[in-house]
Amino acid sequence: MMIEHLLKTAVRDIVDFPKPGIIFKDITPILKDPSLCDAILDAFMIRLQDLSIDVVAGIESRGFLFGLMLANKLGVPFVPIRKQGKLPAQTIQQSYALEYGYATMEIHADAFEPGSRVLIHDDLLATGGTVAAASELVKKLKGTIAGYCFIISLDFLNGKEQLLPYSEQLISLIGY
Amino acid sequence: MMIEHLLKTAVRDIVDFPKPGIIFKDITPILKDPSLCDAILDAFMIRLQDLSIDVVAGIESRGFLFGLMLANKLGVPFVPIRKQGKLPAQTIQQSYALEYGYATMEIHADAFEPGSRVLIHDDLLATGGTVAAASELVKKLKGTIAGYCFIISLDFLNGKEQLLPYSEQLISLIGY
Repeated sequence: MMIEHLLKTAVRDIVDFPKPGIIFKDITPILKDPSLCDAILDAFMIRLQDLSIDVVAGIESRGFLFGLMLANKLGVPFVPIRKQGKLPAQTIQQSYALEYGYATMEIHADAFEPGSRVLIHDDLLATGGTVAAASELVKKLKGTIAGYCFIISLDFLNGKEQLLPYSEQLISLIGY
Repeated sequence: MMIEHLLKTAVRDIVDFPKPGIIFKDITPILKDPSLCDAILDAFMIRLQDLSIDVVAGIESRGFLFGLMLANKLGVPFVPIRKQGKLPAQTIQQSYALEYGYATMEIHADAFEPGSRVLIHDDLLATGGTVAAASELVKKLKGTIAGYCFIISLDFLNGKEQLLPYSEQLISLIGY
C-alpha cells in the first residue's frame, strides 16, 4: 500500500540506540513531512471509523504527537497517559516490569466517564509493556478499550499478544 | 476576547503542584474539548500569519500536543526538542540552570537547514529557562527565531525578558 511504502521510506534506522544491539525506529523524518502526517491521519481515520471511539488516550511523549490530532479529527476528548509525577491532578497508577526494575504510568482519575470506549495511541508498539499498563489504567477507570493504534509495530517482539486480552482491534500502519 | 475567556474557564488551578507554594496551570481540560482545541489553533494561525515560518519546534512533552498540529496546519516541518538522551540520531545539546542543578535539552543536528525561520512552541511560558535553551539550540543550528507561541504565559515570572534577545514576536493566548 501507498502509505506503507511512504512510511517505510521515511522511518530512519538508528543503530545501537538507546543501547548496543537495538535498532531504533526514528519517526522524526515523518514529522518533517506535513503531507505524510496528513496521510497517516487519513489512514488511521479509515481504519478507526467503525470502532465508536469516545476518547483517545495518548502515551507520553511521542503518543502526544498524533494522539491529540487524532482526537480532534474524531471530535472526541484527548487524555494524556504519563510517567509518574507528571500529571498535576488526582491520578491512578499502574506499574510494570522493565528489563531491570519497573516503571509507573499514571492517568487522571477524572480522565473520562465510566463506560467510555477508549482508543489507546502511541507511535510504536514494541514489547507492549507500557501499552498494557495504559490498558490497565483504562480498565481501572471502568473504560472499555475500543482499540489500539500505532504508526509502527515491531512484530518480532510480540507486543500484540500482551494486548489481545484487552482488545482485538490493533491497528498499525507498518510492521517490522 | 472570546478565546481568552474560554481558555481561562477551562484551565484548572492545581494547588501545591509540583511542590508546595506552586499553583500549577493544568491544561488537560482543554485537551478534552475538541472545539476549544480548534479555537486555539485558529487563534495561533491568525497571530502567526505574518511571521514567514519555515519550521515549528515543539518542546517535550506538552509542546508536542499542539506543536505538530500547528506545523501541519502551516504546512511546514515539525521538529522535537527533547530532554537529554531521548533523540536517537546525532544531536546538539544546551544546558541551563534550574533552581537546584541543571537540565540539558537536545535537538537533532539535521533538524532544519541553516537560515530557516523557526517558531518555538510550548504549552506554557514560565521563567523561560527551557525556552531560552531551546532558542540557543536553534541559534547553534544557524536558524532564525521567527517567534514564540504559548497557550499560557505566567507573566509574573518575567519569562518574556529571557526571550526578547532572540525575538520580539511572543504570542500567548492568555496571561496570568
